[in-house]
Amino acid sequence: MALAVRPAPGGGGAAAGLCDDLSVSTSRRVGRPRAQGRPESGLSPREELLAAAAELFTTRGYTATTTRALAERAGMRQASMYHYVGGKEDLLADLLEGTVTPSLRLARSLAADEGRPAGARLWELCRSDAELLCSGPHNLGALYLLPEVAAPRFAGFHRARAELKDAYARLLAATAPCAGLAADALALRADLLFALIEGLILANRSSPDFTAAAADAALRIAGVPEADLPALRTS
Amino acid sequence: MALAVRPAPGGGGAAAGLCDDLSVSTSRRVGRPRAQGRPESGLSPREELLAAAAELFTTRGYTATTTRALAERAGMRQASMYHYVGGKEDLLADLLEGTVTPSLRLARSLAADEGRPAGARLWELCRSDAELLCSGPHNLGALYLLPEVAAPRFAGFHRARAELKDAYARLLAATAPCAGLAADALALRADLLFALIEGLILANRSSPDFTAAAADAALRIAGVPEADLPALRTS
Repeated sequence: MALAVRPAPGGGGAAAGLCDDLSVSTSRRVGRPRAQGRPESGLSPREELLAAAAELFTTRGYTATTTRALAERAGMRQASMYHYVGGKEDLLADLLEGTVTPSLRLARSLAADEGRPAGARLWELCRSDAELLCSGPHNLGALYLLPEVAAPRFAGFHRARAELKDAYARLLAATAPCAGLAADALALRADLLFALIEGLILANRSSPDFTAAAADAALRIAGVPEADLPALRTS
Repeated sequence: MALAVRPAPGGGGAAAGLCDDLSVSTSRRVGRPRAQGRPESGLSPREELLAAAAELFTTRGYTATTTRALAERAGMRQASMYHYVGGKEDLLADLLEGTVTPSLRLARSLAADEGRPAGARLWELCRSDAELLCSGPHNLGALYLLPEVAAPRFAGFHRARAELKDAYARLLAATAPCAGLAADALALRADLLFALIEGLILANRSSPDFTAAAADAALRIAGVPEADLPALRTS
């Protein structure tokens, strides 16, 4: 997720750039201008809270994490926390959106890049998305399956995830092996391809070899012949 | 998981047959002989508790579910509950093991069935495992990612899951396309194949078409040529 794998330009801002320029807005409650974060981390207070939430939600559990524990982990008092975030749900929504928005941004630019073969663009999206889901110190994908995530507060995350899945389906439809498929068969293949990529959350294994192999596997699900794979791999 | 997709012989016993004849034993505390379950359900008290846990753990969350709520949902008093189960952890361990032990049992019998092509046996394991993970009223795979599952109490589940993954790897290694692969490349492919099947937990879609398509996708990851697939599909 963005917190770990995509350092913001300017460096250090671990959670910076989450959801920027995307429609999946989060209701950020900022009671007063942002103070500087703790000097040693270089993070803003909100970023400190997001980092604390990523750690505690995945290691202690979402329900078991109190706002007090979050504030303490982020080096501030519980009362101060509410100047920067609306509460636990706000942090969870931001973390979840951070696991899809960088891939969604890439998918949008790949959709526009019609000069390249669809298979090559699909490979790049799969590899990059696999890296996003597998990298970082905390397995944020584990939060996808929390029952709390069904609440309306997380509509932004669900919308972004649905849009990402749709982008996969469109790239898939544009590949040579899928060009002749009926809508049903195509939807099924898109579901399976998306299941493979998101299933990497459960595999909990991270390396450039692994994410490239995942992208290869995705193209095999698409039906791309083995001999065509090398030409479709991009760095 | 077994609770839903594999009715026990004799009918009605939703949770019956979990873990039987397998080494993944659970420490069942039975303080007195089992009473009959509520007449209308036909379930034993322990089975009532497992059904209640499946529902409440996946809809309210594991941490948020109290033993009192479990007992009430199962139609008994909180104090009575401890005659049948050791507590929440005991129920969670049983539910988790139920998501792997039927597939493990099938994998063992498929391993011994050397007269059939490895690809056909792999296809059958994938399809059956996909059905186990996708079927049933509650998405028990969602419980895989609970931080609590790292505790030693769940060693039996982790052992069974590791053995199942190993069975996948052995069948994969015996297929024609993987016969020449180095150990590293084979392990990578087994990881991806397992990620696809377990990733279906996140896809949350269930139908015979879907599980068969998942098994097809698994063979494509194995490297089986499209033209060879029809002959490998069983049932």
